[in-house]
Amino acid sequence: MASPSSMTTTSSTTSKLVFSGCSTSSSSSSSSSRRFLPLTTATTSSKCRAFHFHRRFNPLRHVHLRPCKNPTTVFSQTINRPSFIAAAMATEASAKVIDGKRVAKEIREEKACEDAGIKSFEACLPKDATEEEVLKHISSSNNDPAVHGILVQLPLPSHINEQNVLNAVCIEKDVDGFHPLNIGRLAMRDREPLFVPCTPKGCIELLHRYGVVIKGKRAVVIGRSNIVGMPAALLLQREDATVSVVHSRTKNPEEFTREADIIISAVGQANMVKGSWIKPGAVIIDVGINPVEDSESPRGYRLVGDVCYDEARQIASAITPVPGGVGPMTIAMLLSNTLISAKRIHNFN
Amino acid sequence: MASPSSMTTTSSTTSKLVFSGCSTSSSSSSSSSRRFLPLTTATTSSKCRAFHFHRRFNPLRHVHLRPCKNPTTVFSQTINRPSFIAAAMATEASAKVIDGKRVAKEIREEKACEDAGIKSFEACLPKDATEEEVLKHISSSNNDPAVHGILVQLPLPSHINEQNVLNAVCIEKDVDGFHPLNIGRLAMRDREPLFVPCTPKGCIELLHRYGVVIKGKRAVVIGRSNIVGMPAALLLQREDATVSVVHSRTKNPEEFTREADIIISAVGQANMVKGSWIKPGAVIIDVGINPVEDSESPRGYRLVGDVCYDEARQIASAITPVPGGVGPMTIAMLLSNTLISAKRIHNFN
Repeated sequence: MASPSSMTTTSSTTSKLVFSGCSTSSSSSSSSSRRFLPLTTATTSSKCRAFHFHRRFNPLRHVHLRPCKNPTTVFSQTINRPSFIAAAMATEASAKVIDGKRVAKEIREEKACEDAGIKSFEACLPKDATEEEVLKHISSSNNDPAVHGILVQLPLPSHINEQNVLNAVCIEKDVDGFHPLNIGRLAMRDREPLFVPCTPKGCIELLHRYGVVIKGKRAVVIGRSNIVGMPAALLLQREDATVSVVHSRTKNPEEFTREADIIISAVGQANMVKGSWIKPGAVIIDVGINPVEDSESPRGYRLVGDVCYDEARQIASAITPVPGGVGPMTIAMLLSNTLISAKRIHNFN
Repeated sequence: MASPSSMTTTSSTTSKLVFSGCSTSSSSSSSSSRRFLPLTTATTSSKCRAFHFHRRFNPLRHVHLRPCKNPTTVFSQTINRPSFIAAAMATEASAKVIDGKRVAKEIREEKACEDAGIKSFEACLPKDATEEEVLKHISSSNNDPAVHGILVQLPLPSHINEQNVLNAVCIEKDVDGFHPLNIGRLAMRDREPLFVPCTPKGCIELLHRYGVVIKGKRAVVIGRSNIVGMPAALLLQREDATVSVVHSRTKNPEEFTREADIIISAVGQANMVKGSWIKPGAVIIDVGINPVEDSESPRGYRLVGDVCYDEARQIASAITPVPGGVGPMTIAMLLSNTLISAKRIHNFN
């Protein structure tokens, strides 16, 4: 059910999470753009000219803005395409498998009527587009009352100031939740963000749906990125966990994870978290999506998480697989945020 | 050198940090307004009528907005009054005493010329003032080019929406740094807040001035308030510490503090942190200002921190006293932020 364009978002997003200071070896490429190119390529269907907005009339709209490697590549589609994320399987594991694909499907079915009405449109600009051109597109979507959510595909080319572009998205349509005003409200007690960033929101939703108690528990977040680690830590703290944030400058991160009841890992380092890092019975949310070489795969690689799954599932009480864990939830939360936006704009309860 | 009105700010601010879920007994009053009334009263000099702005011509200006218990009490003064904070003394301690009063004096002297030009003006409204009246005063200061910093004295009366009032302060003059946009920028990597909240900024400045290495260290922040705990944790993380935030829902907070190289405590619970909670050699920044009964004091009470000072100084390598530690730094940082604001508005480097 996930749209390929949303998938591109997810993978590009995750690709920024490089745990650069860690000495753990990894078979994944260090180049974030290279690492996720296969997924991006796999989901791209060359259609029409750059600068083109393909739009259909619909009350719920969602726009992607993305710099293209290939300036003639644009895609636009509804969300109703079959997902290509494989189902999770862990028949021998002691840990409960937290099936993000199933939960994401449930969430989409809970709002099936609205879901069917959400359309995704992509504005694909050439890679040498000026910042002004990007800002003009954003301004156009900001002012279009039929658009309820705007997503800027990161990373942007180096000649474009990412902060200027993200700041230009009006906060009422910032369904990514990356606007600093949203992050500030997320950080503050007694404040509410308009939108919670999709991936961390999906992580917490999985914990809720699987009945994991957060309040009073020790949580460790591995990674402190703006888009996953930092907001995930803020969300866990809002739920009354005691949170420690482990990052590339942390000495002996395993000393923290070994004490954790809940671990959220978002570093983009294949199989970094070993079984010996995990407290028996812990719950593990693995946000990493890392390609590792696999000659047996037709693609020449397969995707693994930050957590060594085969080891962890012997020790943890519950764990998300990769793929099929957090990934589908990110997309479901993006739809959820778009729906929230449309309801708010149209004064629905 | 600290102004009484700034002191009032500091104490009112700290009074919000109540560690409600902690079972540790405390001799401090549970009523925040009552706890800090002595200080407020002690610093109030009844002068003139409510609603009155006392102003002098000066390029660097700083306005306080404060609801008065006594509607006829207004004060306005420059910063050049003698401080009534006692000097720190700890002659028998093994820990180095982090002398906030001395550092605050150094900071003020480093910008002595500008410092002399900062004027503080207070708008004191009756406690039954409407939200509209408060907002009107803020708007007036927002639009006054001679005002460079605005500070809203918290807490506000219950009929006034604190968020509405704080949001009304234009971010360019939010020298408190409490605007959610500033907090969001503080939380995000590669972003810079216009102003860092004064008390947490003062804590970090003390660590810097005393040569305490933060990068790669384990830091524990006790308390997660919007005005101290949360921004202090964000600042420590920006400095590459591995940060855990302990709060009222944390079970066994001492298990976290015992592993910490740096402890910042901001809960408003007298003597909560015992010597047994502290790792030998740790550095302790005590933000708490708690009155405890003292029949030998002419006031009937004395001020102590969150940390049991006599025990801690035998174990820690450095510690801030209360009073004379963080308190004076808060005021110095408020002046620093006001100077930053004035320079920014006038395009000075």
